[in-house]
Amino acid sequence: MSKLSPKLSQQLAFLQELEKLKAIQRKTTVKPDNNRQENSAEHSWHIAVQAMTLQEYAEEPVDISRVINMLLLHDIVEIDAGDTFAFANSSELSGQEAKELAAAERLFGLLPSVQADAFKALWQEFEQAQTPDARFAKAMDCLLPVIQNMDCNGGTWAKYRVSRSQVLQRNRHLEKIAPRLWDYLLEQINISVQHGWLQDI
Amino acid sequence: MSKLSPKLSQQLAFLQELEKLKAIQRKTTVKPDNNRQENSAEHSWHIAVQAMTLQEYAEEPVDISRVINMLLLHDIVEIDAGDTFAFANSSELSGQEAKELAAAERLFGLLPSVQADAFKALWQEFEQAQTPDARFAKAMDCLLPVIQNMDCNGGTWAKYRVSRSQVLQRNRHLEKIAPRLWDYLLEQINISVQHGWLQDI
Repeated sequence: MSKLSPKLSQQLAFLQELEKLKAIQRKTTVKPDNNRQENSAEHSWHIAVQAMTLQEYAEEPVDISRVINMLLLHDIVEIDAGDTFAFANSSELSGQEAKELAAAERLFGLLPSVQADAFKALWQEFEQAQTPDARFAKAMDCLLPVIQNMDCNGGTWAKYRVSRSQVLQRNRHLEKIAPRLWDYLLEQINISVQHGWLQDI
Repeated sequence: MSKLSPKLSQQLAFLQELEKLKAIQRKTTVKPDNNRQENSAEHSWHIAVQAMTLQEYAEEPVDISRVINMLLLHDIVEIDAGDTFAFANSSELSGQEAKELAAAERLFGLLPSVQADAFKALWQEFEQAQTPDARFAKAMDCLLPVIQNMDCNGGTWAKYRVSRSQVLQRNRHLEKIAPRLWDYLLEQINISVQHGWLQDI
Protein backbone atom coordinates (compact mmCIF):
# COMPACT_ATOMS: atom_id res chain seq x y z
CA MET A 1 0.00 0.00 0.00
CA SER A 2 1.50 3.35 -1.04
CA LYS A 3 2.10 5.95 1.65
CA LEU A 4 1.79 8.75 -0.91
CA SER A 5 -0.90 11.32 -0.29
CA PRO A 6 -3.66 11.38 -2.93
CA LYS A 7 -2.61 14.97 -3.67
CA LEU A 8 1.00 14.10 -4.48
CA SER A 9 -0.15 11.10 -6.52
CA GLN A 10 -2.31 13.41 -8.65
CA GLN A 11 0.56 15.85 -9.14
CA LEU A 12 2.91 13.05 -10.20
CA ALA A 13 0.33 11.70 -12.65
CA PHE A 14 0.08 15.18 -14.20
CA LEU A 15 3.88 15.46 -14.49
CA GLN A 16 4.07 12.02 -16.12
CA GLU A 17 1.29 12.94 -18.58
CA LEU A 18 3.28 16.03 -19.65
CA GLU A 19 5.82 13.68 -21.23
CA LYS A 20 3.42 13.50 -24.18
CA LEU A 21 3.98 17.17 -25.13
CA LYS A 22 7.46 16.09 -26.26
CA ALA A 23 5.80 14.12 -29.07
CA ILE A 24 3.59 16.96 -30.37
CA GLN A 25 5.16 18.29 -33.54
CA ARG A 26 5.04 21.87 -34.77
CA LYS A 27 5.64 23.07 -38.32
CA THR A 28 8.93 24.78 -37.34
CA THR A 29 12.16 22.92 -38.10
CA VAL A 30 14.85 22.62 -35.43
CA LYS A 31 17.92 24.26 -36.92
CA PRO A 32 20.83 22.18 -35.58
CA ASP A 33 19.05 18.87 -36.27
CA ASN A 34 18.23 19.99 -39.77
CA ASN A 35 15.03 18.28 -40.88
CA ARG A 36 13.56 17.40 -37.50
CA GLN A 37 10.35 19.23 -36.59
CA GLU A 38 10.26 21.16 -33.34
CA ASN A 39 8.06 19.77 -30.59
CA SER A 40 5.81 21.81 -28.32
CA ALA A 41 7.79 21.03 -25.16
CA GLU A 42 11.08 22.45 -26.41
CA HIS A 43 9.17 25.37 -27.95
CA SER A 44 7.64 26.09 -24.53
CA TRP A 45 11.10 26.27 -22.97
CA HIS A 46 12.45 28.54 -25.70
CA ILE A 47 9.54 30.94 -25.43
CA ALA A 48 9.79 31.15 -21.63
CA VAL A 49 13.47 32.14 -21.90
CA GLN A 50 12.52 34.59 -24.67
CA ALA A 51 10.04 36.29 -22.32
CA MET A 52 12.71 36.47 -19.57
CA THR A 53 15.15 38.01 -22.06
CA LEU A 54 12.81 40.51 -23.74
CA GLN A 55 10.66 41.59 -20.79
CA GLU A 56 11.96 45.17 -20.93
CA TYR A 57 10.17 45.71 -24.26
CA ALA A 58 6.67 45.36 -22.78
CA GLU A 59 4.97 48.74 -23.12
CA GLU A 60 2.58 48.13 -20.22
CA PRO A 61 3.97 46.89 -16.88
CA VAL A 62 3.83 43.09 -16.71
CA ASP A 63 4.42 40.54 -13.97
CA ILE A 64 7.04 38.52 -15.81
CA SER A 65 6.73 35.49 -13.52
CA ARG A 66 3.02 35.24 -14.44
CA VAL A 67 3.91 35.65 -18.12
CA ILE A 68 6.47 32.83 -17.83
CA ASN A 69 4.02 30.58 -15.99
CA MET A 70 1.44 31.15 -18.75
CA LEU A 71 3.98 30.31 -21.42
CA LEU A 72 5.06 27.14 -19.61
CA LEU A 73 1.43 25.99 -19.60
CA HIS A 74 0.17 27.49 -22.86
CA ASP A 75 0.63 24.46 -25.13
CA ILE A 76 -0.20 21.62 -22.73
CA VAL A 77 -3.69 21.33 -24.26
CA GLU A 78 -1.98 20.21 -27.49
CA ILE A 79 -1.39 16.81 -25.86
CA ASP A 80 -5.05 16.10 -26.67
CA ALA A 81 -5.91 18.80 -29.22
CA GLY A 82 -2.76 18.84 -31.40
CA ASP A 83 -0.83 21.83 -32.70
CA THR A 84 -2.35 24.21 -35.25
CA PHE A 85 -0.21 26.13 -37.72
CA ALA A 86 -0.10 29.91 -37.20
CA PHE A 87 -1.40 30.38 -40.74
CA ALA A 88 -3.95 27.56 -40.80
CA ASN A 89 -7.16 28.30 -42.73
CA SER A 90 -10.56 28.45 -41.07
CA SER A 91 -11.56 24.89 -41.98
CA GLU A 92 -8.34 23.57 -40.40
CA LEU A 93 -9.21 25.51 -37.23
CA SER A 94 -12.83 24.34 -37.07
CA GLY A 95 -13.66 22.86 -33.69
CA GLN A 96 -10.19 23.60 -32.32
CA GLU A 97 -11.43 25.84 -29.52
CA ALA A 98 -13.80 23.17 -28.18
CA LYS A 99 -11.07 20.52 -28.46
CA GLU A 100 -8.65 22.69 -26.49
CA LEU A 101 -11.19 23.41 -23.77
CA ALA A 102 -11.91 19.70 -23.35
CA ALA A 103 -8.16 19.08 -23.28
CA ALA A 104 -7.68 21.69 -20.54
CA GLU A 105 -10.44 20.08 -18.48
CA ARG A 106 -8.88 16.64 -18.76
CA LEU A 107 -5.20 17.57 -18.42
CA PHE A 108 -5.31 20.22 -15.69
CA GLY A 109 -8.05 18.07 -14.13
CA LEU A 110 -5.39 15.47 -13.32
CA LEU A 111 -4.17 17.87 -10.61
CA PRO A 112 -5.67 18.46 -7.15
CA SER A 113 -8.69 20.72 -7.67
CA VAL A 114 -7.30 24.01 -6.30
CA GLN A 115 -4.18 23.68 -8.46
CA ALA A 116 -6.21 22.47 -11.45
CA ASP A 117 -8.34 25.61 -11.24
CA ALA A 118 -5.30 27.89 -10.89
CA PHE A 119 -3.46 26.35 -13.88
CA LYS A 120 -6.61 26.33 -16.02
CA ALA A 121 -7.31 29.98 -15.15
CA LEU A 122 -3.78 30.95 -16.24
CA TRP A 123 -4.23 29.07 -19.52
CA GLN A 124 -7.60 30.76 -20.13
CA GLU A 125 -6.16 34.17 -19.34
CA PHE A 126 -3.49 33.50 -21.97
CA GLU A 127 -6.05 32.37 -24.53
CA GLN A 128 -8.29 35.39 -23.97
CA ALA A 129 -5.37 37.86 -24.10
CA GLN A 130 -7.29 40.55 -22.21
CA THR A 131 -4.71 41.36 -19.50
CA PRO A 132 -1.27 42.97 -19.91
CA ASP A 133 0.44 39.72 -18.84
CA ALA A 134 -1.53 37.61 -21.31
CA ARG A 135 -1.11 40.12 -24.12
CA PHE A 136 2.66 40.12 -23.67
CA ALA A 137 2.71 36.32 -23.46
CA LYS A 138 0.72 36.09 -26.72
CA ALA A 139 3.08 38.59 -28.35
CA MET A 140 6.01 36.34 -27.37
CA ASP A 141 4.22 33.35 -28.93
CA CYS A 142 3.84 35.19 -32.23
CA LEU A 143 7.36 36.63 -32.19
CA LEU A 144 9.44 33.50 -31.59
CA PRO A 145 8.71 31.95 -35.02
CA VAL A 146 9.81 35.26 -36.58
CA ILE A 147 13.17 35.04 -34.80
CA GLN A 148 13.48 31.38 -35.82
CA ASN A 149 12.48 31.96 -39.46
CA MET A 150 14.99 34.79 -39.83
CA ASP A 151 17.70 32.34 -38.75
CA CYS A 152 16.58 29.63 -41.25
CA ASN A 153 16.27 31.36 -44.64
CA GLY A 154 12.61 32.11 -44.09
CA GLY A 155 11.79 28.76 -42.44
CA THR A 156 8.04 28.05 -42.36
CA TRP A 157 7.26 31.30 -44.21
CA ALA A 158 9.17 30.13 -47.26
CA LYS A 159 8.09 26.49 -46.95
CA TYR A 160 4.36 27.27 -46.73
CA ARG A 161 4.41 30.34 -49.04
CA VAL A 162 3.23 32.74 -46.34
CA SER A 163 2.62 36.37 -47.36
CA ARG A 164 3.69 39.72 -45.93
CA SER A 165 0.06 40.59 -45.15
CA GLN A 166 -0.47 37.35 -43.19
CA VAL A 167 2.55 38.04 -40.98
CA LEU A 168 1.47 41.65 -40.45
CA GLN A 169 -2.05 40.52 -39.56
CA ARG A 170 -0.82 37.92 -37.07
CA ASN A 171 1.58 40.30 -35.33
CA ARG A 172 -0.18 43.66 -35.59
CA HIS A 173 -0.86 43.77 -31.82
CA LEU A 174 2.93 44.09 -31.31
CA GLU A 175 2.71 47.74 -32.35
CA LYS A 176 1.01 48.62 -29.05
CA ILE A 177 2.30 45.81 -26.82
CA ALA A 178 6.01 46.17 -27.64
CA PRO A 179 6.69 48.98 -30.13
CA ARG A 180 10.43 48.30 -30.43
CA LEU A 181 9.73 44.66 -31.28
CA TRP A 182 7.17 45.88 -33.84
CA ASP A 183 9.97 47.92 -35.48
CA TYR A 184 12.09 44.76 -35.52
CA LEU A 185 9.24 42.83 -37.14
CA LEU A 186 8.69 45.41 -39.88
CA GLU A 187 12.38 45.32 -40.73
CA GLN A 188 12.42 41.50 -40.88
CA ILE A 189 9.35 41.46 -43.11
CA ASN A 190 11.06 43.78 -45.58
CA ILE A 191 14.21 41.68 -45.57
CA SER A 192 12.16 38.53 -46.06
CA VAL A 193 10.20 39.93 -48.99
CA GLN A 194 13.49 41.01 -50.60
CA HIS A 195 14.86 37.47 -50.21
CA GLY A 196 11.64 35.94 -51.53
CA TRP A 197 11.03 34.20 -48.18
CA LEU A 198 7.67 35.99 -47.85
CA GLN A 199 5.22 36.47 -50.70
CA ASP A 200 4.90 40.17 -51.55
CA ILE A 201 1.13 40.45 -51.09
CA MET B 1 21.53 49.49 -42.42
CA SER B 2 19.54 47.93 -39.60
CA LYS B 3 17.63 50.22 -37.24
CA LEU B 4 17.90 47.64 -34.46
CA SER B 5 19.58 48.75 -31.28
CA PRO B 6 22.83 46.90 -30.51
CA LYS B 7 21.14 45.71 -27.30
CA LEU B 8 18.19 44.06 -29.08
CA SER B 9 20.54 42.58 -31.67
CA GLN B 10 22.53 40.91 -28.87
CA GLN B 11 19.37 39.57 -27.25
CA LEU B 12 18.15 38.14 -30.56
CA ALA B 13 21.54 36.50 -31.18
CA PHE B 14 21.29 34.83 -27.75
CA LEU B 15 17.75 33.59 -28.48
CA GLN B 16 18.86 32.17 -31.83
CA GLU B 17 21.85 30.45 -30.22
CA LEU B 18 19.50 28.71 -27.74
CA GLU B 19 18.13 26.69 -30.65
CA LYS B 20 21.18 24.47 -30.19
CA LEU B 21 20.00 23.18 -26.81
CA LYS B 22 17.29 21.27 -28.73
CA ALA B 23 20.07 19.12 -30.20
CA ILE B 24 21.76 18.23 -26.89
CA GLN B 25 20.77 14.69 -25.99
CA ARG B 26 20.30 13.31 -22.50
CA LYS B 27 20.36 9.66 -21.47
CA THR B 28 16.61 9.66 -20.69
CA THR B 29 14.26 8.23 -23.31
CA VAL B 30 11.13 10.15 -24.30
CA LYS B 31 8.25 7.84 -23.50
CA PRO B 32 5.72 8.55 -26.25
CA ASP B 33 8.37 8.54 -29.00
CA ASN B 34 9.78 5.29 -27.69
CA ASN B 35 13.47 5.11 -28.55
CA ARG B 36 14.18 8.80 -29.01
CA GLN B 37 16.50 10.38 -26.42
CA GLU B 38 15.24 13.42 -24.54
CA ASN B 39 16.94 16.72 -25.33
CA SER B 40 17.94 19.34 -22.78
CA ALA B 41 15.47 21.96 -24.05
CA GLU B 42 12.35 19.83 -23.52
CA HIS B 43 13.82 18.63 -20.20
CA SER B 44 14.18 22.28 -19.13
CA TRP B 45 10.50 22.91 -19.86
CA HIS B 46 9.38 19.78 -18.01
CA ILE B 47 11.42 20.63 -14.92
CA ALA B 48 10.14 24.21 -14.80
CA VAL B 49 6.53 22.96 -14.80
CA GLN B 50 7.53 20.38 -12.19
CA ALA B 51 8.80 23.17 -9.90
CA MET B 52 5.55 25.13 -10.43
CA THR B 53 3.55 22.02 -9.56
CA LEU B 54 5.54 20.82 -6.54
CA GLN B 55 6.52 24.15 -4.95
CA GLU B 56 4.42 23.47 -1.83
CA TYR B 57 6.83 20.65 -0.84
CA ALA B 58 9.79 22.98 -0.27
CA GLU B 59 10.61 22.85 3.44
CA GLU B 60 12.25 26.31 3.46
CA PRO B 61 10.40 29.26 1.89
CA VAL B 62 11.44 29.69 -1.76
CA ASP B 63 10.80 32.36 -4.37
CA ILE B 64 9.37 30.05 -6.99
CA SER B 65 9.81 32.53 -9.84
CA ARG B 66 13.57 32.60 -9.15
CA VAL B 67 13.59 28.79 -8.96
CA ILE B 68 11.84 28.60 -12.34
CA ASN B 69 14.22 31.13 -13.89
CA MET B 70 17.19 29.10 -12.67
CA LEU B 71 15.72 25.93 -14.12
CA LEU B 72 15.04 27.61 -17.46
CA LEU B 73 18.72 28.60 -17.63
CA HIS B 74 20.35 25.66 -15.84
CA ASP B 75 21.27 23.56 -18.89
CA ILE B 76 22.15 26.27 -21.42
CA VAL B 77 25.86 25.68 -20.80
CA GLU B 78 25.39 22.20 -22.30
CA ILE B 79 25.29 23.84 -25.75
CA ASP B 80 29.08 24.02 -25.48
CA ALA B 81 29.87 21.61 -22.65
CA GLY B 82 27.46 18.71 -23.43
CA ASP B 83 25.24 16.78 -21.03
CA THR B 84 26.73 14.55 -18.33
CA PHE B 85 24.88 11.50 -17.01
CA ALA B 86 23.71 11.74 -13.40
CA PHE B 87 25.69 8.63 -12.59
CA ALA B 88 28.79 9.39 -14.65
CA ASN B 89 32.10 8.27 -13.12
CA SER B 90 34.80 10.71 -12.08
CA SER B 91 36.86 10.30 -15.29
CA GLU B 92 33.78 11.12 -17.38
CA LEU B 93 33.29 14.26 -15.30
CA SER B 94 36.92 15.38 -15.49
CA GLY B 95 37.20 18.97 -16.71
CA GLN B 96 33.42 19.36 -16.90
CA GLU B 97 33.31 22.24 -14.41
CA ALA B 98 35.84 24.29 -16.39
CA LYS B 99 34.04 23.52 -19.65
CA GLU B 100 30.72 24.68 -18.19
CA LEU B 101 32.21 27.89 -16.85
CA ALA B 102 33.70 28.71 -20.25
CA ALA B 103 30.33 27.88 -21.82
CA ALA B 104 28.53 30.24 -19.43
CA GLU B 105 30.98 33.03 -20.29
CA ARG B 106 30.44 32.58 -24.01
CA LEU B 107 26.69 31.92 -24.06
CA PHE B 108 25.44 34.43 -21.49
CA GLY B 109 28.13 36.75 -22.85
CA LEU B 110 26.10 37.04 -26.05
CA LEU B 111 23.65 39.20 -24.06
CA PRO B 112 24.01 42.88 -23.12
CA SER B 113 26.39 43.01 -20.15
CA VAL B 114 23.90 43.75 -17.35
CA GLN B 115 21.65 40.91 -18.47
CA ALA B 116 24.62 38.62 -19.09
CA ASP B 117 25.77 39.16 -15.50
CA ALA B 118 22.27 38.58 -14.10
CA PHE B 119 21.72 35.32 -16.04
CA LYS B 120 25.20 34.05 -15.25
CA ALA B 121 24.72 34.84 -11.55
CA LEU B 122 21.46 32.84 -11.52
CA TRP B 123 23.19 29.90 -13.21
CA GLN B 124 26.07 30.07 -10.70
CA GLU B 125 23.66 30.24 -7.78
CA PHE B 126 22.03 27.08 -9.11
CA GLU B 127 25.37 25.31 -9.53
CA GLN B 128 26.55 26.24 -6.05
CA ALA B 129 23.24 25.21 -4.40
CA GLN B 130 23.87 27.34 -1.32
CA THR B 131 20.56 29.27 -1.21
CA PRO B 132 17.05 27.88 -0.54
CA ASP B 133 16.00 28.71 -4.13
CA ALA B 134 19.00 26.95 -5.65
CA ARG B 135 18.71 23.97 -3.32
CA PHE B 136 15.08 23.46 -4.30
CA ALA B 137 15.93 23.89 -7.99
CA LYS B 138 18.70 21.26 -7.68
CA ALA B 139 16.29 18.93 -5.88
CA MET B 140 13.86 19.29 -8.80
CA ASP B 141 16.67 18.43 -11.21
CA CYS B 142 17.43 15.21 -9.34
CA LEU B 143 13.77 14.27 -8.86
CA LEU B 144 12.47 14.54 -12.42
CA PRO B 145 14.42 11.50 -13.72
CA VAL B 146 12.97 9.50 -10.80
CA ILE B 147 9.42 10.41 -11.88
CA GLN B 148 10.32 9.57 -15.49
CA ASN B 149 12.05 6.28 -14.66
CA MET B 150 9.08 5.12 -12.56
CA ASP B 151 6.91 5.63 -15.65
CA CYS B 152 9.27 3.67 -17.96
CA ASN B 153 10.00 0.36 -16.19
CA GLY B 154 13.07 1.78 -14.53
CA GLY B 155 14.26 3.79 -17.56
CA THR B 156 17.90 4.84 -17.28
CA TRP B 157 18.30 3.05 -13.92
CA ALA B 158 17.60 -0.30 -15.54
CA LYS B 159 19.44 0.50 -18.78
CA TYR B 160 22.66 1.60 -17.05
CA ARG B 161 22.44 -0.83 -14.08
CA VAL B 162 22.26 1.91 -11.48
CA SER B 163 22.18 0.85 -7.82
CA ARG B 164 19.98 1.77 -4.86
CA SER B 165 22.96 3.37 -3.10
CA GLN B 166 23.74 5.60 -6.10
CA VAL B 167 20.17 6.94 -6.22
CA LEU B 168 20.15 7.48 -2.45
CA GLN B 169 23.49 9.29 -2.65
CA ARG B 170 22.34 11.56 -5.48
CA ASN B 171 19.05 12.48 -3.80
CA ARG B 172 19.93 12.45 -0.11
CA HIS B 173 19.55 16.25 0.17
CA LEU B 174 15.80 15.77 -0.50
CA GLU B 175 15.36 14.58 3.08
CA LYS B 176 15.88 18.14 4.36
CA ILE B 177 14.80 20.15 1.30
CA ALA B 178 11.46 18.41 0.69
CA PRO B 179 10.75 15.65 3.24
CA ARG B 180 7.52 14.48 1.62
CA LEU B 181 9.32 14.06 -1.70
CA TRP B 182 12.04 12.15 0.14
CA ASP B 183 9.36 9.74 1.40
CA TYR B 184 8.19 9.36 -2.21
CA LEU B 185 11.76 8.65 -3.33
CA LEU B 186 12.33 5.97 -0.67
CA GLU B 187 9.13 4.24 -1.72
CA GLN B 188 10.10 4.32 -5.42
CA ILE B 189 13.55 2.94 -4.65
CA ASN B 190 12.01 -0.03 -2.83
CA ILE B 191 9.59 -0.68 -5.69
CA SER B 192 12.43 -0.42 -8.20
CA VAL B 193 14.66 -2.85 -6.33
CA GLN B 194 11.74 -5.31 -6.12
CA HIS B 195 11.23 -5.05 -9.90
CA GLY B 196 14.98 -5.41 -10.56
CA TRP B 197 15.12 -1.89 -12.08
CA LEU B 198 17.70 -0.86 -9.48
CA GLN B 199 20.61 -3.04 -8.37
CA ASP B 200 20.21 -4.02 -4.70
CA ILE B 201 23.53 -2.65 -3.48
